[in-house]
Amino acid sequence: MNENFKVLKSSPDTQARYGELVTIHGVVPTPAFLPVASQGTVKALAPDDLKDVGVAIILSNTYHLYLRPGIDVIERFGGLHRYMSWDRPILTDSGGYQVFSLARLRKITDEGIVFCSHIDGSEHFLTPELVIEFQERLGADIIMTLDECPAHGEQIAKISEAVERTTRWAERCLKHHQGSKQLLFGIVQGGLFPELRRQSAESIVSLGFPGYAIGGLSLGEPKASTWSMVESTVPLLPWDKPRYLMGVGSPEDIVEGVSRGMDIFDSALPTRVARNGAVFTTQGRQNIKRAIYKTREGSIEKGCDCYTCRNFSAAYLNHLFRCEELLAYRLATIHNLRFIIKLVQRIQDAIKDGSFADFRDDFLRHYRVTDEEVRLAQKQKWLNAPRHSSEIM
Amino acid sequence: MNENFKVLKSSPDTQARYGELVTIHGVVPTPAFLPVASQGTVKALAPDDLKDVGVAIILSNTYHLYLRPGIDVIERFGGLHRYMSWDRPILTDSGGYQVFSLARLRKITDEGIVFCSHIDGSEHFLTPELVIEFQERLGADIIMTLDECPAHGEQIAKISEAVERTTRWAERCLKHHQGSKQLLFGIVQGGLFPELRRQSAESIVSLGFPGYAIGGLSLGEPKASTWSMVESTVPLLPWDKPRYLMGVGSPEDIVEGVSRGMDIFDSALPTRVARNGAVFTTQGRQNIKRAIYKTREGSIEKGCDCYTCRNFSAAYLNHLFRCEELLAYRLATIHNLRFIIKLVQRIQDAIKDGSFADFRDDFLRHYRVTDEEVRLAQKQKWLNAPRHSSEIM
Repeated sequence: MNENFKVLKSSPDTQARYGELVTIHGVVPTPAFLPVASQGTVKALAPDDLKDVGVAIILSNTYHLYLRPGIDVIERFGGLHRYMSWDRPILTDSGGYQVFSLARLRKITDEGIVFCSHIDGSEHFLTPELVIEFQERLGADIIMTLDECPAHGEQIAKISEAVERTTRWAERCLKHHQGSKQLLFGIVQGGLFPELRRQSAESIVSLGFPGYAIGGLSLGEPKASTWSMVESTVPLLPWDKPRYLMGVGSPEDIVEGVSRGMDIFDSALPTRVARNGAVFTTQGRQNIKRAIYKTREGSIEKGCDCYTCRNFSAAYLNHLFRCEELLAYRLATIHNLRFIIKLVQRIQDAIKDGSFADFRDDFLRHYRVTDEEVRLAQKQKWLNAPRHSSEIM
Repeated sequence: MNENFKVLKSSPDTQARYGELVTIHGVVPTPAFLPVASQGTVKALAPDDLKDVGVAIILSNTYHLYLRPGIDVIERFGGLHRYMSWDRPILTDSGGYQVFSLARLRKITDEGIVFCSHIDGSEHFLTPELVIEFQERLGADIIMTLDECPAHGEQIAKISEAVERTTRWAERCLKHHQGSKQLLFGIVQGGLFPELRRQSAESIVSLGFPGYAIGGLSLGEPKASTWSMVESTVPLLPWDKPRYLMGVGSPEDIVEGVSRGMDIFDSALPTRVARNGAVFTTQGRQNIKRAIYKTREGSIEKGCDCYTCRNFSAAYLNHLFRCEELLAYRLATIHNLRFIIKLVQRIQDAIKDGSFADFRDDFLRHYRVTDEEVRLAQKQKWLNAPRHSSEIM
């Protein structure tokens, strides 16, 4: 048996686990957070910045790379690692989520998906087999099956159909996946319907993957629904395989997700809000553009060891944001990612020494979470915004 | 006598000189190039990037800092060095050039200038005394007198008046400048009229400054006129003081300027064109966005030791620019500044070993200069463009 993952320690009073995920490009301690490098770059950062911040693994989007620069271009470089000059592990998604959220869909059949590029409108065809082939050629360490990901609010019949198709596609992905060392993860769908989640989890688990993801969450539903779906899915996932909660990665959500037995998280949120001037502190997100920061001599967060906080005052950050200087986006992104990476490291330590429940309670007591109503409104605005890959946001 | 500058070596067959300029924050070897940090940041770069590139001294704009964040804010931090986290020398300009080119002018009298902010339209009043006070409070190593800088194409009467006012203002600046260790440079004006240049140079030199600048050039005039004005001014400047050619800094212009006896150069051009995808090579500027670079495996320039070229292919840069990724601007800026700094270092070495004329001829033979007509059209477009401090360009 190929042991790519080991749970080394579990939390006595929560479902949190500390583990190690072995990939071609190195061992990733879990819980782990993956910054998003949609187009082969974590927006505003260079690979050196990511290493300074302590990032162990990143996520890149097959959909974006397929459209630009094209899989063939990256393949010429021996894969994405060399192309973007990053030698640590990479996870690529299948492109499914972007096809459903970003592209203009033309037709979904069991065979595959016809869609139009959000960049130039050109028509493309994606199948489970192609998605595997693309990810193999990109050379990612962890790759994902093609799933059908309906929008939040779809009817049960539509979600049920998506669950069934996701299983059929997962089977084809698994079959097509050559016996390489890349780890292929299966994805559980099912919307906000516990019964469909159960059905999906059982089917996907029965196929036998080295890791499992929960997809189709964080699409604009209330937080209580997110966690309810996680709670009804986790018991159906094998203990000895990594569990990946796709698209979830705010500080409080990582803590909540770990507590419910999830090991891997990815989200563009920490880097996206950074470019909008929202910086993480142990008290919650702060808007560095606010006037009170204009003369604030201390760093964004006292005691923070990130490059930004070691070198610059909150006042200087405030100035850079008000002037819309490019340096602002890099410095705020470095801080937010460092905040998340440190959080994940403290979570690992707390699980190791059996104090995770206390850590969780303490963290959530101090971290002021964005008001649910405001959060959902922001999310909806973001989901509805016209998407340009060039946007700073 | 306070020796802030020494010519240590001069070129036998050109007017080039190698020297050392002593400032509060360290010694600057000359010829020197100053990247422009208009708003207290060289666009897209952090101080560490500048040090990696080998930058010895930067320029910042009093006009921009006065409007945002305000002189008082920076003074609270003990000056610009600490505010922006840069411990090497800084030169600030007086704000005169921006007031004439960027702001909406209301009234110029001998007393001073009334202008409206380009950001919010608020009205402000600038005098020679205030300009000195601002620069002293910013804590720059080298500061500049307030000069009147008429646009290219103004009538002789207007330019003559500006020359006379510039002298009167220079006198007031000198008088107001407290006996600090900051070096106050005088500025020669005179448009494209040799007689006015002579008159201005003689008056300014008679006041006695530790350094002299030639202003009012590179405003859209043909290159031949620029050099003709430099040639008629340099003989009137004292041999033992540094000579600063303001706003000039393309690779070929630095070589030409040094050859005519200039020591200091500043220009936003290397960093501005970088953000537009124009990267310097020994063959001239190349547009990295061109399709031929999409699969180019080598670096932007073979053998270049900059961070960008050591880590990334031209193909990856091409991809980042096509996707308008923020990392593109930083990587191209690093390359262009490293190109200029290396050029300046090679110029220094060539002067030291007596081979500068050969170096100059060899450089100019290989470096394909942008066609004059295209250059002037680009310049005009740039000068006419609506200015927003936030623009990426």
